[in-house]
Amino acid sequence: MRQPMKFSKIPTATITRLSIYSRYLEALAQEGVKIIASDKLAQKCGINPAQIRKDLAYFGEFGIRGVGYFVKELLFEIKRILGLNKSWKMALIGIGNLGSALLAHQNFIRQGYEFAAVFDVDPAKVGRRLPSGQLIHHLDELEQAIKDKDVEIGVIATPASQAQAVAQRLIQAGIKAILNFAPTQLQVPEGMAVENVDFTVKLDNLAYHLTMGNT
Amino acid sequence: MRQPMKFSKIPTATITRLSIYSRYLEALAQEGVKIIASDKLAQKCGINPAQIRKDLAYFGEFGIRGVGYFVKELLFEIKRILGLNKSWKMALIGIGNLGSALLAHQNFIRQGYEFAAVFDVDPAKVGRRLPSGQLIHHLDELEQAIKDKDVEIGVIATPASQAQAVAQRLIQAGIKAILNFAPTQLQVPEGMAVENVDFTVKLDNLAYHLTMGNT
Repeated sequence: MRQPMKFSKIPTATITRLSIYSRYLEALAQEGVKIIASDKLAQKCGINPAQIRKDLAYFGEFGIRGVGYFVKELLFEIKRILGLNKSWKMALIGIGNLGSALLAHQNFIRQGYEFAAVFDVDPAKVGRRLPSGQLIHHLDELEQAIKDKDVEIGVIATPASQAQAVAQRLIQAGIKAILNFAPTQLQVPEGMAVENVDFTVKLDNLAYHLTMGNT
Repeated sequence: MRQPMKFSKIPTATITRLSIYSRYLEALAQEGVKIIASDKLAQKCGINPAQIRKDLAYFGEFGIRGVGYFVKELLFEIKRILGLNKSWKMALIGIGNLGSALLAHQNFIRQGYEFAAVFDVDPAKVGRRLPSGQLIHHLDELEQAIKDKDVEIGVIATPASQAQAVAQRLIQAGIKAILNFAPTQLQVPEGMAVENVDFTVKLDNLAYHLTMGNT
């Protein structure tokens, strides 16, 4: 394997695609598929084959020309690259409809993400136990819980109006990564990683396909 | 403006990025910003400047060298390309926590997406009115409502076990585009556009940044 280039130079879009590849590879591994041609993987992921080869080339040489990729090997490598060979602890702030839906979502645990502590400010919610058995803490306990439970990722599912204040507290508590579901642009200092979930970006893809009639 | 190339050749990843550009351009337009340098736009979107220029080149020539892009003009063009100069009607199936959160999400309407009809099978929900005033219909009324209300996009927010059956009904009712929130891979015929929303892909980006310590 040739020496991988410096990791910090890798574009975000490549990382996102690696994550998508890993989802399909995981499904293939579960189906018992051992080898996949790069064209087939590309087609399944909706990405062109040249792009896949380019993305993987950042990290070394994978696959065998004319044969394809070894599913398990490639999956293992991608997981290692993405840092998914460990589990990640998250704090969830905002236990409304969206927060509750996130807690019930099986994919998080499956992919190695765990809600270690959950928070709200609504007196009707604080102190209640979720179906999972988890206690809803008051936001006042955020800093202590982050420390006690080694939380590394903050997930904001509050109304837009509260999101910035919550982000501020997460940052002050030493959190370096935020997944933001609130429909607002967070202002964060340099060095923070923020991912915004905007469902409408996916809808734009659908609208484009419908418009072009090439679905 | 030179002749744009054939639209059907444009990669999905480009369409996704156009959608992301449009979000930032919209925010800029609201702030009254008239011109943005391509480097600045690239930085805001977390995408490299060469990629932005390449993406836009599919559709013609935009911007002025050494100056940047005219915010409103570029936004208008991207919206036209994506088919967002009209509003889109959606049917939502599954009014659990996630479905309820989607209905309350302000971004859909803001971006031109409207839930024209909503469905469930739970007798405790069917016939109830949502806070928005919308009636929850039984799934049995799906086909009629799609016809009556000119629904073009189906949004699946059911449990994973129900998603395929719902997709089947949407397809039979003539729907060509599905936004799927259920954590399962839908099997659909050629010609359908399906977008899966998987929150964990975003988390993988954060995990990578935390792992590399380059946040």
